[in-house]
Amino acid sequence: MPHTLLIVHVDIAVLPEHLDAFLAATQDNAEASRDEPGVLRFDVLTDRADPSHIVFVEIYRDDAAAAAHKDTAHYQRWRDAAEPMMARPRQATRYVNTSPDDGDW
Amino acid sequence: MPHTLLIVHVDIAVLPEHLDAFLAATQDNAEASRDEPGVLRFDVLTDRADPSHIVFVEIYRDDAAAAAHKDTAHYQRWRDAAEPMMARPRQATRYVNTSPDDGDW
Repeated sequence: MPHTLLIVHVDIAVLPEHLDAFLAATQDNAEASRDEPGVLRFDVLTDRADPSHIVFVEIYRDDAAAAAHKDTAHYQRWRDAAEPMMARPRQATRYVNTSPDDGDW
Repeated sequence: MPHTLLIVHVDIAVLPEHLDAFLAATQDNAEASRDEPGVLRFDVLTDRADPSHIVFVEIYRDDAAAAAHKDTAHYQRWRDAAEPMMARPRQATRYVNTSPDDGDW
């Protein structure tokens, strides 16, 4: 019952005037990312108290899958479009799945 | 294609000397919580850079399901056991699913 997934939470403050464009670019990236073989989930969350506060929950099979994601055209297109729409640099935190085991994701 | 789920991230700093006991109590709570009808997922993550930094990702069908969770014996047992093991009060942030839609969780 291993615990070896890589789960990345990306915390983003979007400039409110760019929120619609940010979400459109993000939806394109999320849909393409879900088709990557090493991506188990790619979820986009909005803070109920602050619609400009967005969190990505990215679940990768392993570290190599996360590296491969950054090499894709859809990620790089998102990054180039989205970075100027952020109020501060985004913050990523890397986790491992403590529960459940690898098989239940 | 509605977006109405309630996703709660709970950020916890565990006192390192209590980490094993905290994780045991948390596993019991997570397993019981997954059997609640309104709980879609109840994941426990450990920060790869700091094993005493734990995040719960709780996905509820709606607000009523989150309220029902707090009424369960397993939650209250976890709360009473775990709160003294924390280095600071835990911080909960409430999100809605922006992507994907409700059906894909």
